[in-house]
Amino acid sequence: MKEFPSLHQISDREAEELCQTLRERVIDVVSRTGGHLASNLGAVELTVALHRVYDTARDRLVFDVGHQCYIHKMLTGRNGRMETLRTFGGIAGFPKPSESVHDACIAGHASTAVSTALGMAVARTRLGEDYKVVALLGDGSLTGGLAYEGLSMAGQSGEPLVVILNDNGMSIDASMGGVAQHLAKQRLNPPYLRGKEIYRKIMCATPPGRWLHGVIHGLKEAVKASILPCSMFENMGFHYMGPVDGHDVGALTRQLAYAAALKEPVLLHVKTVKGKGYGPAEKNPDAFHGTGPFDKKTGRLLHPKSGESFSDRFGQTLCDLAREDKRICAMTAAMTSGTGLASLANEFPDRFFDVGIAEEHAVSMVAGMAKQGLVPVFAVYSTFFQRSYDMLVHDIAIDGIHAVFGVDRAGLVGDDGETHHGLFDPGFLKTVPGMTVLCPAGLEELSSMIRKAVYDLTGPVAVRYPRGGENGYSQDNSQKPACVLREGSDITLVTFGTLTGSVLQVAERLARDGISAEVVKLNQIIPLPAEAVLASLEKTGRLLVAQECVSMGSPGEDVLSAAAAHGITLRGAALCSCGEDFVPHGTVSQLRALCGLDVGSMYQKAREVMNDGK
Amino acid sequence: MKEFPSLHQISDREAEELCQTLRERVIDVVSRTGGHLASNLGAVELTVALHRVYDTARDRLVFDVGHQCYIHKMLTGRNGRMETLRTFGGIAGFPKPSESVHDACIAGHASTAVSTALGMAVARTRLGEDYKVVALLGDGSLTGGLAYEGLSMAGQSGEPLVVILNDNGMSIDASMGGVAQHLAKQRLNPPYLRGKEIYRKIMCATPPGRWLHGVIHGLKEAVKASILPCSMFENMGFHYMGPVDGHDVGALTRQLAYAAALKEPVLLHVKTVKGKGYGPAEKNPDAFHGTGPFDKKTGRLLHPKSGESFSDRFGQTLCDLAREDKRICAMTAAMTSGTGLASLANEFPDRFFDVGIAEEHAVSMVAGMAKQGLVPVFAVYSTFFQRSYDMLVHDIAIDGIHAVFGVDRAGLVGDDGETHHGLFDPGFLKTVPGMTVLCPAGLEELSSMIRKAVYDLTGPVAVRYPRGGENGYSQDNSQKPACVLREGSDITLVTFGTLTGSVLQVAERLARDGISAEVVKLNQIIPLPAEAVLASLEKTGRLLVAQECVSMGSPGEDVLSAAAAHGITLRGAALCSCGEDFVPHGTVSQLRALCGLDVGSMYQKAREVMNDGK
Repeated sequence: MKEFPSLHQISDREAEELCQTLRERVIDVVSRTGGHLASNLGAVELTVALHRVYDTARDRLVFDVGHQCYIHKMLTGRNGRMETLRTFGGIAGFPKPSESVHDACIAGHASTAVSTALGMAVARTRLGEDYKVVALLGDGSLTGGLAYEGLSMAGQSGEPLVVILNDNGMSIDASMGGVAQHLAKQRLNPPYLRGKEIYRKIMCATPPGRWLHGVIHGLKEAVKASILPCSMFENMGFHYMGPVDGHDVGALTRQLAYAAALKEPVLLHVKTVKGKGYGPAEKNPDAFHGTGPFDKKTGRLLHPKSGESFSDRFGQTLCDLAREDKRICAMTAAMTSGTGLASLANEFPDRFFDVGIAEEHAVSMVAGMAKQGLVPVFAVYSTFFQRSYDMLVHDIAIDGIHAVFGVDRAGLVGDDGETHHGLFDPGFLKTVPGMTVLCPAGLEELSSMIRKAVYDLTGPVAVRYPRGGENGYSQDNSQKPACVLREGSDITLVTFGTLTGSVLQVAERLARDGISAEVVKLNQIIPLPAEAVLASLEKTGRLLVAQECVSMGSPGEDVLSAAAAHGITLRGAALCSCGEDFVPHGTVSQLRALCGLDVGSMYQKAREVMNDGK
Repeated sequence: MKEFPSLHQISDREAEELCQTLRERVIDVVSRTGGHLASNLGAVELTVALHRVYDTARDRLVFDVGHQCYIHKMLTGRNGRMETLRTFGGIAGFPKPSESVHDACIAGHASTAVSTALGMAVARTRLGEDYKVVALLGDGSLTGGLAYEGLSMAGQSGEPLVVILNDNGMSIDASMGGVAQHLAKQRLNPPYLRGKEIYRKIMCATPPGRWLHGVIHGLKEAVKASILPCSMFENMGFHYMGPVDGHDVGALTRQLAYAAALKEPVLLHVKTVKGKGYGPAEKNPDAFHGTGPFDKKTGRLLHPKSGESFSDRFGQTLCDLAREDKRICAMTAAMTSGTGLASLANEFPDRFFDVGIAEEHAVSMVAGMAKQGLVPVFAVYSTFFQRSYDMLVHDIAIDGIHAVFGVDRAGLVGDDGETHHGLFDPGFLKTVPGMTVLCPAGLEELSSMIRKAVYDLTGPVAVRYPRGGENGYSQDNSQKPACVLREGSDITLVTFGTLTGSVLQVAERLARDGISAEVVKLNQIIPLPAEAVLASLEKTGRLLVAQECVSMGSPGEDVLSAAAAHGITLRGAALCSCGEDFVPHGTVSQLRALCGLDVGSMYQKAREVMNDGK
């Protein structure tokens, strides 16, 4: 597959042809690899226009949630490797500076682009350099307060930079998004309405007045339409341009070139259609936001999802609870279907809250709801829950508020890679006073633990569970904070979550070598149910902890620290975890192997522990 | 001191007299106790009006950064205890539900009130109750994106609730705050200006047109003035009222009563003067934002600040660095003088950035600055740094960006209490891959460590130091990650920061008992310099760690976990820390005693450790 030359000299006609080529190529690639399709199809012309105007090797193009970067990757020397998209060792699904100088920065969490671009523009100016900076964000990113903080400062900084608002009118649900509303409608206040009435009276008192009134009315409507969409951005200090048709590559290029030449902050409002140019994706952009491999002709998935996922079970359990108890409410930050809440949203619209990409707000709001008698359950991806840390400490924990958090996508998530793995929640949740964290190993345990979190526990409670439904362990041990799944005397294997099955296999293999391993499964990981673990360690004196999270602040560290505090001598100890750094993309089993969390590696590690201190 | 009866039946005249009484009382109290004065003086009439309209025992009054709650506390049964304000065991300087049913929730961090109030309003409606909910926020809180997230959802929720914007035009510096700008000015876009020109041409073509043009022009100006300040809130879905004079208690009461009766989200814009009614505070509201005890007549501080603080030294060091190196930039989130950056801001305005109360944005912006060649140093209070957690992980750590964080107010801060102590940073910073955390014990070490952070280390580096300048240890040991300050063979005392002096005293006392204590001082707390500590533990077999932070995720836990991983048996071990829960307000020495971090308690603990496992 050939790479594309620089686009700086091509004509509009050539650009249109190129867009056609790129569109076909991206459909072809994603139909085979899976990935984000609809947003990339919507951004074809925009990306080509960007590359006609900017030199991304030097100018800085900052994506906001970079899953619309495929066309950009194809245009910057990575077209030939697109078949490896999101596969282990292949091209990442998000911008990645280590992959190409054309990727200005990592971007997997929303609403950061304007802030980062402003930092870059400031550096450019302060260091007397002359490259250009452009941030590209979708309308969904505007629901996050961080975008507002960045826009607010960028607009007033006076720094030359261009913010492109890729408005596909998709990401903002009708129920949320102040800016969307600001863009979409206006409400007038009483003084204005009174003023209007007096004006009408005066105008209609004379015949020329009446004639003028008609003319002016038409004019005013035009003025209103032109002034209102942009006033917020203009008042922030931006030079507002648009809206521009995001599929007219010629017009886009000219507008962009003009914006790039201005010596001030510019907001260019571009209207695009998600899924543009591919019938099935235009018709059903949600299904093609992130998709698995599909049949290009029909748009049908080649490997339709089978089996129940943890998210499905979570949503179903919450629905059951909501039927029984009218205090139960569910909340999501723009992930209704991802977190399994679609049915609940449908059945209990009054008790379902989608706050947009606003995890901070979600938790402060949960605090108010819980304080006044509701039982709110906030379902949130582990990686995005990081945004709520301060609100957990300040709004929830100080008051000891009982609220439940369904921490989805905890552990390795697979092909979305380092920006999306849920490996930090045990470490940061552990520091929140009064926090309890449960971790089911299978679907039955998830149901039980949600109920337990709602009814049996106090204070903030998180239940963490992984993406998908694989590797589930069927037994339900949730009644106790920890349990011994297999007794043994030579080494203690501690684990939790969906690694349980693998650890039991390790114990089997060790048994074949004549090593008697005790398997302790933590059902509650925070606070550590130390008693059960220490009792086993006192017996065996050797430890291996298997955990799908970074080692810093992990339950494994807690086990070690509890052992030391109780004067237990470990003749050998090892933590099998995701290490101390970020984990790239790949399938979950590839990544488990990479981290040494596959059965073979853990068995090997256990053997090493057995040989320690002999 | 008498308590005040319900204000529901008092006349405007009585209310005015009451305001006078309260104003004198709050000046009197704060002149003796110290505390927040200017904001409380600005809110006297507003608070009285609130209590004339609402029943705060039942209705929910949600403060945003509640330091303007003193009048509210005086009106709700706590007038007689105001002399104990911010003292150990006395009345807190912030709302506190455990203190009174009239305090709806804790509030020490900014921009949370609308979110929490919305949660409460939703609970009220869903559970079929009928109390009222009102949120009170200052204009400074609007610089935080969280406020925008809350407003955005509250406006569109349709939930009856009142948001009072207490606009004293103080908290927002000219350089920041999109909404402030939105309130203060308008910029018109080209289509609007073109429309206006056509309109003028048509109007002026006939004599009645010219006459009407004059009339309409006047009307239009009035309409513009009335529509523009509110359009953002109106467009978010709020019924906008105001601006109202915040010192006219009668008018305020009527507006509030009207607002409270509306069955929709209302934003009431109130203009107040910070420090109102007390000359010195009106003239210099910044000095009276938070003040120590002062002479009521002159406004002069009774105990002017003496001695250099860590913040002073931080600012001075950074100024020195900025003079030498033009890449050095400083950033603050609305704490220019608190973080010691006033001189730098003055000397290098081009390299100083005040982002407002927007710690999320600050870190994402720092990422962009650092990436493009600057060396940004973000000075931030430990407790507010909690808001940046996700950006540290996602924007800074994934790319291994070199940025420096001056983590001020780390440890116990004293009279601001649980919402402001900096006890969580070791725990959450530890989980950030590649993060290094240094902790100076004195001013010289602070200077050296800042230089070290800027020039010798890579990746993200935090330097954490406490409020004030007390308890400093003069020796500079910063060249090594850890050092042995005193050799011994019976017990290892591990510490860091300004507890160093106390721990050396503990070692002295133990020596008098014939116990030989080795004192290991950590200069770098993250990652743990395990070698030095383990070498000592192998020798002594007993451990006491003294640390001014919560125990969860603390360096003390790391020491224990490292010991266990290396097979070291501890015959006795104890962590002296701030425990696993929040610490109330009081002086730092009172709170250290409360936590068992005074010399006597730590000595006692060390003796217990010596007796363990004998």
